[in-house]
Amino acid sequence: MPKGCKYGTHRVIEPKGVLPQPAWKIDNTMEIYDNEILIDVHTLNIDSASFTQIEQETGGDEGKIAQKMLEIVSQRGKHHNPVTGSGGMLVGTVREIGKDLQGKIDLKVGDKIATLVSLSLTPLVINRIKEIRKEIDQVDIDGQAILFESGIYAKLPDDMPETLALAVLDVAGAPAQTAKLVKPGDTVFIIGAGGKSGMLCLHEAKKRAGVTGKVIGMGHSEASCKRILELGLADVMIQGSATEPVDVLKKVEEVTDGELADITINCVNIPNTEMASILATKDKGLVYFFSMATSFTAAALGAEGIGKDVTMIIGNGYTKGHAEISLNVLRENPKLREVFEKLYA
Amino acid sequence: MPKGCKYGTHRVIEPKGVLPQPAWKIDNTMEIYDNEILIDVHTLNIDSASFTQIEQETGGDEGKIAQKMLEIVSQRGKHHNPVTGSGGMLVGTVREIGKDLQGKIDLKVGDKIATLVSLSLTPLVINRIKEIRKEIDQVDIDGQAILFESGIYAKLPDDMPETLALAVLDVAGAPAQTAKLVKPGDTVFIIGAGGKSGMLCLHEAKKRAGVTGKVIGMGHSEASCKRILELGLADVMIQGSATEPVDVLKKVEEVTDGELADITINCVNIPNTEMASILATKDKGLVYFFSMATSFTAAALGAEGIGKDVTMIIGNGYTKGHAEISLNVLRENPKLREVFEKLYA
Repeated sequence: MPKGCKYGTHRVIEPKGVLPQPAWKIDNTMEIYDNEILIDVHTLNIDSASFTQIEQETGGDEGKIAQKMLEIVSQRGKHHNPVTGSGGMLVGTVREIGKDLQGKIDLKVGDKIATLVSLSLTPLVINRIKEIRKEIDQVDIDGQAILFESGIYAKLPDDMPETLALAVLDVAGAPAQTAKLVKPGDTVFIIGAGGKSGMLCLHEAKKRAGVTGKVIGMGHSEASCKRILELGLADVMIQGSATEPVDVLKKVEEVTDGELADITINCVNIPNTEMASILATKDKGLVYFFSMATSFTAAALGAEGIGKDVTMIIGNGYTKGHAEISLNVLRENPKLREVFEKLYA
Repeated sequence: MPKGCKYGTHRVIEPKGVLPQPAWKIDNTMEIYDNEILIDVHTLNIDSASFTQIEQETGGDEGKIAQKMLEIVSQRGKHHNPVTGSGGMLVGTVREIGKDLQGKIDLKVGDKIATLVSLSLTPLVINRIKEIRKEIDQVDIDGQAILFESGIYAKLPDDMPETLALAVLDVAGAPAQTAKLVKPGDTVFIIGAGGKSGMLCLHEAKKRAGVTGKVIGMGHSEASCKRILELGLADVMIQGSATEPVDVLKKVEEVTDGELADITINCVNIPNTEMASILATKDKGLVYFFSMATSFTAAALGAEGIGKDVTMIIGNGYTKGHAEISLNVLRENPKLREVFEKLYA
């Protein structure tokens, strides 16, 4: 087979000219191009919104859920729910590596991986549905999938349960970006510090800012603030709501002697927290929005409205090495791993 | 008078705890705090959406427009249209500078300035409405306004008409950010190159990238592509639509020998151009979204979906020196000034 487009446009059937994700139908022929990877799929982690929709449409009957899933894949060549528009991710074993990629990537046949690109753009064939685990939106199948050259993945580690690894990989971008942004001596302010990505970011921020830096977390509940201080993840915790910018500004001024933060990382998944993030950051500082509830215009006009010269970054879920960096947080921090095992695995 | 909050929260009347912009009512007493500036206002440039709404509500009668404007200011202490939520900007003369700011800013009493923060957060008093210029949404008044310590402004230059200066100041952030981002030798791709901010960005990009760099513009119409090449603003122009990512990718690959852009600047005010911007940029490159039509989630999930490690920046309308930098573009480039005089002044 020839070499395909690295983004997979060679498999788009309709409409022409778009990328595989927005495409209605893609080619799921399980014969790989020279720059593709063939995967034997064990488990589909269906996106929660998508799985709930399928459950509701079918009344929760397992036979009908299976039938609906087979229908979607046969119509579209991918498990791209036409109602919710969402996909999910998959776990499988590498079956074959296209010859252009051999020796150029850190994978070999037989490696167990999780794909970190959406099922909504991944060519998929389901031969048989083996087990549906409704409570965690997982479906074991006998099937195959294809990863494009640009497709990202993570080798599943031997030293932690699959569920724990998946919980971390789900938010891998945030701690990896934190690791790349924070420098020794920085004052770092993390909003939504008590959540999954928040705690991973705290660990990386503390490690990179070091003894000359200061890591300030903000959480909503007293319990999560207390837990973070006990874990030693932050130097200071502020309890409050990130939707109250003036209050946040005052508190951050207090704990930084009016200096404010060099870097603010927003991990809180509620709207209207842009102004608090901008106000808490010093001029020429950096605001990194990882929250999917961020409004582009609220951030852009908000900073202009108060004449604040901050660099605002749209959180990219992917950065090189993000899976390795995030999984390693749990290896470095056994106490945090315990919390994650209790809460998310 | 004492020193107020630099963001003006000391003038918020209701609701308490918010910033002046979202506040319903602010205190427009024209006695300044020690860190405020008093301005004698000549002209209000009402935001276009706001002015249109007032015109429609009043049937376009000038007496009723004036009455409506007076009502808004008397109710809210600022010209913050309650229907559209928008403001505008003002032109006036500095009347008094609070003692904490004297000698610390580049203003003196008598300077003619345009405020670059929204009227929706500026304390204002209108004594009399002198003239309404409906075709350009401008209203001459006898009145006063207050600028907070964080408020940004630009001194109006002597060497160009006020309308021309205002047209440039309206989009000052984009060329100033371009000036700060682009380094010698960079390949820069500017989407929406034919528009007002696009042309200013092209000038700065060309100047900073220099002879070892390459500036590629993209425009929709043949006429604007031709004009830009004649002006010498870009090395290459691509004609096409930024809503077709695969097509954009192919064309940028062609003109960069497959290398793609170090920096992509998106100035086009239509939706669905995030993917084209991301695809056209090389790994570890930078995408700067100045377009207000940018979707945060489309950018964040789009980059992750194709595993592209690019830094994506939310265009901040303000950066230090943005007014000086942008006005200077027209001084440096008389041919571009001619075009601006024809199109926008």
